[in-house]
Amino acid sequence: MIDLRSDTVTKPTLEMKRAMFDAEVGDDMTGDDPTVNRLEAMVADLLGKEAAVFACSGTQSNQMGVRVHCVPGDELLINSTGHIGIFETGAPAALSGVTVRQIDAPKGMLSVDDLADKPRHDDQHYCRTRLVCLENTTNIAGGFVYPLQQMQQVSDWAQSQNLKMHLDGARFFNACVAGNYSPADMAACFDTISICFSKGLGCPMGSILAGSADQIRLARRARKMFGGALRQAGIVAAAAIYALESHVDRLAEDHDNAKQMATLLAEVDGIHADADLTESNLVFFEVDAELGTAVQLAAALKQRGVQIGPMGGQKMRAATHLDVSQDDVVAAVAAIRDCIAAGFSEQQLVGSGPYSQ
Amino acid sequence: MIDLRSDTVTKPTLEMKRAMFDAEVGDDMTGDDPTVNRLEAMVADLLGKEAAVFACSGTQSNQMGVRVHCVPGDELLINSTGHIGIFETGAPAALSGVTVRQIDAPKGMLSVDDLADKPRHDDQHYCRTRLVCLENTTNIAGGFVYPLQQMQQVSDWAQSQNLKMHLDGARFFNACVAGNYSPADMAACFDTISICFSKGLGCPMGSILAGSADQIRLARRARKMFGGALRQAGIVAAAAIYALESHVDRLAEDHDNAKQMATLLAEVDGIHADADLTESNLVFFEVDAELGTAVQLAAALKQRGVQIGPMGGQKMRAATHLDVSQDDVVAAVAAIRDCIAAGFSEQQLVGSGPYSQ
Amino acid sequence: MIDLRSDTVTKPTLEMKRAMFDAEVGDDMTGDDPTVNRLEAMVADLLGKEAAVFACSGTQSNQMGVRVHCVPGDELLINSTGHIGIFETGAPAALSGVTVRQIDAPKGMLSVDDLADKPRHDDQHYCRTRLVCLENTTNIAGGFVYPLQQMQQVSDWAQSQNLKMHLDGARFFNACVAGNYSPADMAACFDTISICFSKGLGCPMGSILAGSADQIRLARRARKMFGGALRQAGIVAAAAIYALESHVDRLAEDHDNAKQMATLLAEVDGIHADADLTESNLVFFEVDAELGTAVQLAAALKQRGVQIGPMGGQKMRAATHLDVSQDDVVAAVAAIRDCIAAGFSEQQLVGSGPYSQ
Amino acid sequence: MIDLRSDTVTKPTLEMKRAMFDAEVGDDMTGDDPTVNRLEAMVADLLGKEAAVFACSGTQSNQMGVRVHCVPGDELLINSTGHIGIFETGAPAALSGVTVRQIDAPKGMLSVDDLADKPRHDDQHYCRTRLVCLENTTNIAGGFVYPLQQMQQVSDWAQSQNLKMHLDGARFFNACVAGNYSPADMAACFDTISICFSKGLGCPMGSILAGSADQIRLARRARKMFGGALRQAGIVAAAAIYALESHVDRLAEDHDNAKQMATLLAEVDGIHADADLTESNLVFFEVDAELGTAVQLAAALKQRGVQIGPMGGQKMRAATHLDVSQDDVVAAVAAIRDCIAAGFSEQQLVGSGPYSQ
Repeated sequence: MIDLRSDTVTKPTLEMKRAMFDAEVGDDMTGDDPTVNRLEAMVADLLGKEAAVFACSGTQSNQMGVRVHCVPGDELLINSTGHIGIFETGAPAALSGVTVRQIDAPKGMLSVDDLADKPRHDDQHYCRTRLVCLENTTNIAGGFVYPLQQMQQVSDWAQSQNLKMHLDGARFFNACVAGNYSPADMAACFDTISICFSKGLGCPMGSILAGSADQIRLARRARKMFGGALRQAGIVAAAAIYALESHVDRLAEDHDNAKQMATLLAEVDGIHADADLTESNLVFFEVDAELGTAVQLAAALKQRGVQIGPMGGQKMRAATHLDVSQDDVVAAVAAIRDCIAAGFSEQQLVGSGPYSQ
Repeated sequence: MIDLRSDTVTKPTLEMKRAMFDAEVGDDMTGDDPTVNRLEAMVADLLGKEAAVFACSGTQSNQMGVRVHCVPGDELLINSTGHIGIFETGAPAALSGVTVRQIDAPKGMLSVDDLADKPRHDDQHYCRTRLVCLENTTNIAGGFVYPLQQMQQVSDWAQSQNLKMHLDGARFFNACVAGNYSPADMAACFDTISICFSKGLGCPMGSILAGSADQIRLARRARKMFGGALRQAGIVAAAAIYALESHVDRLAEDHDNAKQMATLLAEVDGIHADADLTESNLVFFEVDAELGTAVQLAAALKQRGVQIGPMGGQKMRAATHLDVSQDDVVAAVAAIRDCIAAGFSEQQLVGSGPYSQ
Repeated sequence: MIDLRSDTVTKPTLEMKRAMFDAEVGDDMTGDDPTVNRLEAMVADLLGKEAAVFACSGTQSNQMGVRVHCVPGDELLINSTGHIGIFETGAPAALSGVTVRQIDAPKGMLSVDDLADKPRHDDQHYCRTRLVCLENTTNIAGGFVYPLQQMQQVSDWAQSQNLKMHLDGARFFNACVAGNYSPADMAACFDTISICFSKGLGCPMGSILAGSADQIRLARRARKMFGGALRQAGIVAAAAIYALESHVDRLAEDHDNAKQMATLLAEVDGIHADADLTESNLVFFEVDAELGTAVQLAAALKQRGVQIGPMGGQKMRAATHLDVSQDDVVAAVAAIRDCIAAGFSEQQLVGSGPYSQ
Repeated sequence: MIDLRSDTVTKPTLEMKRAMFDAEVGDDMTGDDPTVNRLEAMVADLLGKEAAVFACSGTQSNQMGVRVHCVPGDELLINSTGHIGIFETGAPAALSGVTVRQIDAPKGMLSVDDLADKPRHDDQHYCRTRLVCLENTTNIAGGFVYPLQQMQQVSDWAQSQNLKMHLDGARFFNACVAGNYSPADMAACFDTISICFSKGLGCPMGSILAGSADQIRLARRARKMFGGALRQAGIVAAAAIYALESHVDRLAEDHDNAKQMATLLAEVDGIHADADLTESNLVFFEVDAELGTAVQLAAALKQRGVQIGPMGGQKMRAATHLDVSQDDVVAAVAAIRDCIAAGFSEQQLVGSGPYSQ
């Protein structure tokens, strides 16, 4: 099975599992896990922040960030396609009483122009605007990569408005590699940064939140409250350390594979794809309505051993990752050609919800 | 001073104050206030609902409605200009953990077409879509009046989707009078209806929420929690009864005055208004940017004894109400002409926040 | 009917209604109501605080206080009988995410000894202890009156622990009159003070929260969120001003009546009361179990035109107030004698919930 | 180092790590992890429930349980020493708006007598009483083991009151082994059961919540919201499966060791312990005040290679677990004797917070 539904499906490699096996562990709830401590120090250092705290998932570290900055009645600004606003079960409101204000932006990337008129002025009728959340790379907006300067401009503006900045770095290192900037340079634009280990980096689980010492102290309380404070967490933190050391540079391959896939798809009759808009490891394409829907195409592909996530209507998203080779990408496109040749409008997809994380 | 900032500025008339003075009262917390009981029965009857509960304000009865229908993690759908989403201090999220999903709609009036693709399907990543909120008349979208059929269609659709319907009836009777439909016919489209007494009806305070007996029982608990359960509330409920008996039909005059104002404004050079888009008591118009901003015009008008609320940029909103006569409207337009003749781009507005309620 | 269930049942006097009738009003949402402004300034001045904000009820001003001081995950300390913890529909948790920690204390009055070991130390497992709430006079603990020194000691200790102090002054002026201290001296012990106008002061509704300018600014946002921001609120604020000017000193009569009632009750066979423990306007007494329950006695009394609230088991609470004369108190005790003479264990109380506010 | 601070400090054994290494995994967010699926089915079956869902920690599965049963404004009843009420960062209030009502009970074990008068009657002043939480074994109350009959009686009563039952089974299998009843018999008393894998069972992390299919579906949403939905979670679920198969029966050794430790401690001058009150793996004892505090003794012990958690004042708690042998227990008591002989009132404990989980 070639699974292009998401980079979350990667399985730990043998070497990663060995690192987990050999990890030195302790009770992290009391700060006694040396591997977790090493990971947290390593990421804080890499990002140029005072501190970092390991978390169970990207949703958790994002929501810890929201809670660090906001109190109930506050509002956060985010691109309308942002994961925090759509795919986290309404947690900003449900857990932290925070209103999500979604802003349309070209390619899902917010600029100062998009944001300038958004902060509410001080009036009892309004939320207090408190936080700007960027997503880099963007997810369902198209896998786009923020230029460093754009983040810096937004950051400067946010500071001038007394707003905090949080980065949903679900694909933080994809952005660094594709955007050709350093983790620290990107991190300098934000108060808090969430980085997910279980996507392109290939870990079975885990995420991290970095920020100031005070913010991370608050984040630890939020993590405990959410049930995310673990015991011998070093066993999973070891995977993250291994991934940081071994799986970052190779993201360039995923990006190359994605671009090649988009190039090949663009040549398929009935498929619309654009390699120029394929900036990272996510390939978005559309299938002609007369051929069938995205859901139907996904069903037909699954029968041919290829899984790609339908996004609603005609749109599909394929994610390249460390369990997908160049050959897999070629084979996937071939399977799409097959499906079109055979016709697929009768197919029904079984057992697959939205796959957009 | 001719105050057109909002219909909330109306002061109780002599007759209304007499009704308050003469009200028979008791401790409403234990259901012992006969005047409150009478008002609640009266409104329930008028709307064809099982029960109703008096509240302190439209914000309160709206938030009681949100809380009756939703639990944390739920999502409500509302026109992007809706009061519940913008002007209630983020209460859906802050008090009830509910995500507000704003939907753009022509004239701020949601149709089945606007809503059809919005309910989230059942997946752990998403909020549970639970409630549709309409606003009739629309407020900052333009004071528009829903056709009865449109509300009925939305209601039927909502039922088919297992969604609840709440009406923000801040200007419920303006809608009935302008739309030429009965309170019960409109109310039949909704599970819960909030009606505000302190706008066009002229009461000093008060609102009411109507619905099923079970819903209103829950709403009473929410009201108590919000601190909205009162003691001898009959003294203010008496004003509401008086208003229902005496101030509903006369809303037609406010609508006539509004339309006349729009007609007159359309003739003023530098002002853009449209009487055809003036459907109720709210007159929206714009001032040419080269003359100055809405804030500056508001400031100049205030010096001439006329108050009109600037809405941001070039846009202004004037509300007619029971303390505004036809002559006042003519005078207000004359004042606008004066301001334009004299120039107003140097003016600064003192002490007035947004006035959009 | 002699209604001793609570001092909340008082009806506005003719003079109070005249003050309401004559009140100058405006739209308080924009700060334009001169009577509300006058009341707020008057109370801030009386308490020696920077600012005050009118609210709809004691529950509302208490919950505004909780929200001003606390964020979700915080904990407040309160006597185990305190109104905020028991009778406000769980609002600290439900609206503000705050844990209520109930502490047993003699007569419901917290001392430094009761509090000293309660603050949680800084650890992620614990709530953050943030707020101490006192209730003066105590309500269901027995209507007791804090000595000024005890509040000062608790206040000094709280400051040393970086805890905030809130007073539930539902019966603030009863405490001042019975405790013989000034409003300002009591208020100096607290960061925020809630005073209720609809109990002994005889207003139909209303409460107020006083504190620093920053705190009251936050409280206004909370009030708006709760739906407690009103329009022409001056009409009810006028009653509060009248009460402050005319109904404070007379609370001494209520206290005298309560003490007399306790003295008379102590002489009734089958009733246990203690005038020495009757410090304000609340009279607590018990009926012998062999005669019947408190609920049964309440039912029998109601048939004789006397209403007294059963508190569970054998316990009853009678509240004296401005609608209760010395003769009424004597008549009420006589009615109790009658009930005991006639037997009352067969009675059933209809339509009365708990009455302990 | 002999670490008796908690059974949470256990490190995964070689065999457990092998099971993790060999685990077959998939993306659990979409239900594709076979090992997680196997664990969930295994526990549901063992407990006789329809479904179960893996969670990151006991705090998380407890809070998922709270959220499944309660809405904001509800109240849960729990023993005053219960973990959910004290050690979960105020999560019931902070995340779910739920009021925790702590009830004193002998040995921390609630009986129908303790509970009978606690449910609030239906009145808008009160929370809605909704959930009873038991803890078995009790934690800081003394490591006591509920008799099965007591849980059954509470369960019957709860059902008669329309209350739900949740079990905090942090040490679920300690209770089964010590109480000599089956998992299914205990589970039959509860709607939802939380079982922790990272205490006596020796896993590095993980917990599980079992209940009806509908409840577990809701719990999955709560888990996702809390950031507890993982990807290749099978790698940690494999440890839980291994523990269920290999580490349950051996808990009897921990209980024996604990009882022996208490017996030995009872013979130490200056130490007060009671083997008859040592029912599971937790040994509570007190040190004479004249010798020094528990914190000081903990500090002195740490220098001798023994860690035991001070509980405040003179009280200490030692937990036996799979990394503690009978010899370790003997050595630990010897170290305590040494400390007493040498005197320890000058010692200061560094870097250890409360250790009571």
